[in-house]
Amino acid sequence: MIPMALLSVDPFAHTLMVLAFAWVVAKLAGELFQRLKLPVVAGELAAGVALAALHRKLPWIPDLAASEGAGVLANLGVVVLMFAVGLESTVPQMVRVGMPSLRVALIGVAAPMAMGLAGAWLLLPSGTPFTVDLFIGACMCATSIGISAQVLREQGASDSLEGRVIVGAAVIDDVLGLLVLTLVSGLVAASGAGGPLPLGPLARTLGLALGFLALALTAGRTLTPRLFALANRLRSESLLLPLGLAFAFLLAWLGNLAGLATIVGAYAAGLILEPAHLVDLEHRERHSLEELIHPLVAVLSPLFFLLMGAKVDPAALFTPATLGFAAVLAGLGLAGKWVAGYGAGNGLRSSVVGWGMVPRGEVGLIFVAAGAQLELGGQPLLSTSTQAGVVGALLLTTIIGPVGLGRALRKGR
Amino acid sequence: MIPMALLSVDPFAHTLMVLAFAWVVAKLAGELFQRLKLPVVAGELAAGVALAALHRKLPWIPDLAASEGAGVLANLGVVVLMFAVGLESTVPQMVRVGMPSLRVALIGVAAPMAMGLAGAWLLLPSGTPFTVDLFIGACMCATSIGISAQVLREQGASDSLEGRVIVGAAVIDDVLGLLVLTLVSGLVAASGAGGPLPLGPLARTLGLALGFLALALTAGRTLTPRLFALANRLRSESLLLPLGLAFAFLLAWLGNLAGLATIVGAYAAGLILEPAHLVDLEHRERHSLEELIHPLVAVLSPLFFLLMGAKVDPAALFTPATLGFAAVLAGLGLAGKWVAGYGAGNGLRSSVVGWGMVPRGEVGLIFVAAGAQLELGGQPLLSTSTQAGVVGALLLTTIIGPVGLGRALRKGR
Repeated sequence: MIPMALLSVDPFAHTLMVLAFAWVVAKLAGELFQRLKLPVVAGELAAGVALAALHRKLPWIPDLAASEGAGVLANLGVVVLMFAVGLESTVPQMVRVGMPSLRVALIGVAAPMAMGLAGAWLLLPSGTPFTVDLFIGACMCATSIGISAQVLREQGASDSLEGRVIVGAAVIDDVLGLLVLTLVSGLVAASGAGGPLPLGPLARTLGLALGFLALALTAGRTLTPRLFALANRLRSESLLLPLGLAFAFLLAWLGNLAGLATIVGAYAAGLILEPAHLVDLEHRERHSLEELIHPLVAVLSPLFFLLMGAKVDPAALFTPATLGFAAVLAGLGLAGKWVAGYGAGNGLRSSVVGWGMVPRGEVGLIFVAAGAQLELGGQPLLSTSTQAGVVGALLLTTIIGPVGLGRALRKGR
Repeated sequence: MIPMALLSVDPFAHTLMVLAFAWVVAKLAGELFQRLKLPVVAGELAAGVALAALHRKLPWIPDLAASEGAGVLANLGVVVLMFAVGLESTVPQMVRVGMPSLRVALIGVAAPMAMGLAGAWLLLPSGTPFTVDLFIGACMCATSIGISAQVLREQGASDSLEGRVIVGAAVIDDVLGLLVLTLVSGLVAASGAGGPLPLGPLARTLGLALGFLALALTAGRTLTPRLFALANRLRSESLLLPLGLAFAFLLAWLGNLAGLATIVGAYAAGLILEPAHLVDLEHRERHSLEELIHPLVAVLSPLFFLLMGAKVDPAALFTPATLGFAAVLAGLGLAGKWVAGYGAGNGLRSSVVGWGMVPRGEVGLIFVAAGAQLELGGQPLLSTSTQAGVVGALLLTTIIGPVGLGRALRKGR
């Protein structure tokens, strides 16, 4: 009779409840893991997986993965996190770790890919096309930097040499991963249709991505001080954080247009922005940009890790054969990244760098999603069980990675 | 051939671009209005209206109202803002302004409703059912507290007596508005069907809303110190802000279940939480909750005001007849709220209080939306042009309100 529903039930109220629930769970899980001397991030990831599994049995537990609002904040969380990580370093500091980062990235793509390929070739039924093994190998070469970045922050090691090499290698990895995916997808299409390798698209992909990074780190650095000097002429209050974020999000968007992950653009924005550019605004607002961004990271990033865990489909994963395949693949992928740590070279703790490269997270999942769309002779390239196994392997590296990195960092003290 | 799109185009990248654009526009509009000695909020509202109108002509201008991500952050923005406003006062302080607030709220519902009703009765074609005039009057009694709260913050008057009376009256207004809407909707249904007045639902609505507020402000105040003492036993870092927000969002959700707007619950949460409850956590994290929440408000609340403006449909509004009707209604609605300011009584600046109650914003729009669903004898209660006129009146009060409040606050100095 009366449209009370319109006035009383705000659809956004449910989002608020989900967020409140998510923060409490994230903090409790983080506490548990911290007391077990494990990284907080690993606790948040595990809590996400557990919640998703529980939601299937107890539907009154909120479905985090289905909440639009939580999804938006989680996506924002990893972008803001990588911007904050970028703010902790400068371009010259990153150039100094350029060579070790490049070596780590190259080995960290080649070794896990070779080992993943070998593992798939040995474990999958004979007669499986070579391109399937190759694609599984490609999925193993991804690096999800958000997780390691958070562990490095937790342990106060973001601005250590190892920390910089890890982040630098992960950025290069993003470009290499783009290339590998283009190449392997091209190979699959070519082996199906008998056509030539797509060298044109390959060169274009590489050129765009490298061009964006080069332009951002050179022209960007020249323009940025002028941009923020202009902003300083505004009289309004609270300019620093909204305009700083606007700058980061703009670069994230532009980088994505050039084929890079949004987090790479946001990280580049953080690298470019240096305290010297902001000194007037920071003086006016009596806080540095890093101080202002900290509460945002504290609120948003737990949602990202919780939701990354919650997006796992436990039903597809928990069969003995799939779990076994996943465990072997994860072990091989882990070994490959661990070997890459030695690429860091003189004086750097290779185990820290290696463990930092282990988590595959959402980057590996993007590879799998791309593979799920590929066909070979009218059949999907990856069978459902193969796909579940690869996802399981990615998940294992994502949970084990922060644990290993946390241990390696503590050992060095 | 290659599913590049999957890897390269992150659907969230567009959201990042929209947000970057929104912050830059909000800051520029705020700057312009500040230089014109007008409130920043009014600039953000006007920029939102302008952007929505421009988007119709120049489709490359991002459509803020259509962005899911911006919508989530905007909704969050007003909830976080009202939580922050609540933090600036305590329950005893609000009890002290209880009587003036109640007087202001009661006059602020009765006077605009009577004047809106009279205006509609005079301006609408004869033969218009009385319930239509009554409903239009009801739409005029709403108060959107977010806007005045932000102006009060801008001018450093949130913790003035007038500021507290305004917020207190707005909270009472939310309960009264709920009642008025239930009553008027019931009258429409009763006059259509010839049935009795819905006294049962009316009593239930009032009981639930008052019950929630009473429980939150009494039991809530006893439980909260214990809750945060528990939280203090956790060893994790960055607990204060996520758990503080979780508390606010939980109360917003519960309040909404009891029929109140989410912002009322969030405001109640802020009132309940007192520095004494948080002293241990604030000491550990070396920041107060108010300091930590400030960057969030700075980032989120401009999005709320920008989007409130962007949701206006200029096409429905800009006809001479509609504009005239809207202007008269707005003037009457404004006068009604302005009269209510005198309810504040001894020693308080009635013009400040009156202007603070003027903006109708989204609360009025919820009334209109409820009215749009009502039918009278098989016809919609409000015709399209009547509805556009009421929306126009609400919009006018929403833009003029902060301007008047800003002036009134400055005059008092």
